[in-house]
Amino acid sequence: MHKLDGLPERVTVYEVGPRDGLQNEKAVIPVEVKAEFIDRLAAAGHTVIETTSFVHPKWVPQLADSGELLAMLQRRPGIRYPVLVPNLKGLDRALESGVEEIAVFASATETFANRNLNRGLESQFEMFEPVIAGALEHGLKVRAYVSMVFGDPWEGPTPIEQVVGVGARLLDLGCFELSLGDTIGVGTPGHATALVEAFGSPERLAVHFHDTYGQALANTMAALKAGVTVVDASTGGIGGCPFAGSATGNLATEDLVWMLNGLGIETGLNLDELVATSVWLAERLGRPSPSRVVQALSQKALSQKD
Amino acid sequence: MHKLDGLPERVTVYEVGPRDGLQNEKAVIPVEVKAEFIDRLAAAGHTVIETTSFVHPKWVPQLADSGELLAMLQRRPGIRYPVLVPNLKGLDRALESGVEEIAVFASATETFANRNLNRGLESQFEMFEPVIAGALEHGLKVRAYVSMVFGDPWEGPTPIEQVVGVGARLLDLGCFELSLGDTIGVGTPGHATALVEAFGSPERLAVHFHDTYGQALANTMAALKAGVTVVDASTGGIGGCPFAGSATGNLATEDLVWMLNGLGIETGLNLDELVATSVWLAERLGRPSPSRVVQALSQKALSQKD
Repeated sequence: MHKLDGLPERVTVYEVGPRDGLQNEKAVIPVEVKAEFIDRLAAAGHTVIETTSFVHPKWVPQLADSGELLAMLQRRPGIRYPVLVPNLKGLDRALESGVEEIAVFASATETFANRNLNRGLESQFEMFEPVIAGALEHGLKVRAYVSMVFGDPWEGPTPIEQVVGVGARLLDLGCFELSLGDTIGVGTPGHATALVEAFGSPERLAVHFHDTYGQALANTMAALKAGVTVVDASTGGIGGCPFAGSATGNLATEDLVWMLNGLGIETGLNLDELVATSVWLAERLGRPSPSRVVQALSQKALSQKD
Repeated sequence: MHKLDGLPERVTVYEVGPRDGLQNEKAVIPVEVKAEFIDRLAAAGHTVIETTSFVHPKWVPQLADSGELLAMLQRRPGIRYPVLVPNLKGLDRALESGVEEIAVFASATETFANRNLNRGLESQFEMFEPVIAGALEHGLKVRAYVSMVFGDPWEGPTPIEQVVGVGARLLDLGCFELSLGDTIGVGTPGHATALVEAFGSPERLAVHFHDTYGQALANTMAALKAGVTVVDASTGGIGGCPFAGSATGNLATEDLVWMLNGLGIETGLNLDELVATSVWLAERLGRPSPSRVVQALSQKALSQKD
């Protein structure tokens, strides 16, 4: 363990596997498997697990069981189980399920706002404002995602001031946390530093890096040095890549925890249990985890059995 | 492109694909393919390409054609084509082939010295000393690798002073460059910083990170910040992993260049040509490149053809 100056003592890993990781799975995963998955994550030490989404089932059929899942899930005290909520209909369903924290999803670019939300960069706020206001009225905490913060596939690099504009407005609306999403994984460490610094203060920022081009951990280092202490990651690296299939998407929780452990940064997470959960999940998804740590440690375990 | 304070303006990528990348391939690769591979790398802008090894063919059958390869290769002016040389016999063969630069391979741990070199941590120098002296006598440049610098599979973490002891001695023997090798990929950024700083000056240091646990680029960032300007990498990430098969071994040149390009650090390398070479090589090796950049860019190219 070797610490490095200028890094936080503790990092909160915001686990997105059950929602962001599973949402694009084609084969329907039984709700019992999802509930067990989430409970394994809690047992491994996670304090915040994005559980599901109350988006219309037509758009994300895999998460059509969100109400059923929340009814079944044994929520542990002290652990946050936020859910993604796109609109007022979704908020109503989340409230019926006893949800205490939600997340909304915004775009930093015009084209992605059009394609993903069917709104413009400006008009997307018409969707969020009533959702955020309604959630706050009911005493819920609201997180906001901003996606495509470094670039999108149509417009190229995203101007930093445009990301700050969208993000600052979401914070002003009362969101307690802003997750900056490199949805297509094109960012590099200097860009990550510049973006975090452009917000003035890192206190309410989280980062959500994708490993599509292998940059997620290098970018994470840059964000931590700039003062960010909340990092999104997905069990086993599942989900999240628009180009490269299942191979390279979300930052894998295990790869992140390996780095943080080596740096002596506390997370409260048990890496062995995380790896075991990813191996267990991979069996259920029918393909190996894309996480390098999971691959290395599970093969090592296998070779030691020989 | 977003620069970051405290990083070098320019980095030399020391390409190890033809030697370190190919040496563990089971199926024999035709010497003509190797020559074309190396020439493609030169055409893509590489200035230093570790070409082959004059190790005994019994140990590395894949590189038994080293003399033939060097005779066939059209060496371009201004480009270095170093070769690995384990002993005096290998040095003689390298000299016969008109080699101008060699590399020797040392261990930072007792157990790996025993297993890989059949010597101890101390007695391994009996192998190197005559090779280095003989090479210098003939006007050759000598690079030294030190392997297992962060840990090995038998002894756990390697004490930093032990690495510095082995490395400093190799530099004292006249090696112009010392490549610090994380042979099993267990290092994290704080450890990388501590090791580079322990040498006192980064001027003659290079780093050789493996991506077994996904840490190679984060570690590279740490090394660059500590003043290192030479980074080893392997085309498409081929080779180099003792545990996880072909999936996660050497740092992929393309993943490194993506990061350096994003940081505005000059390499002189053409990323598109590197990716095309990795795709070409993957076809000859019969499996996809493990590089995330190669996977993403080649799938993007395919999807744009649709």
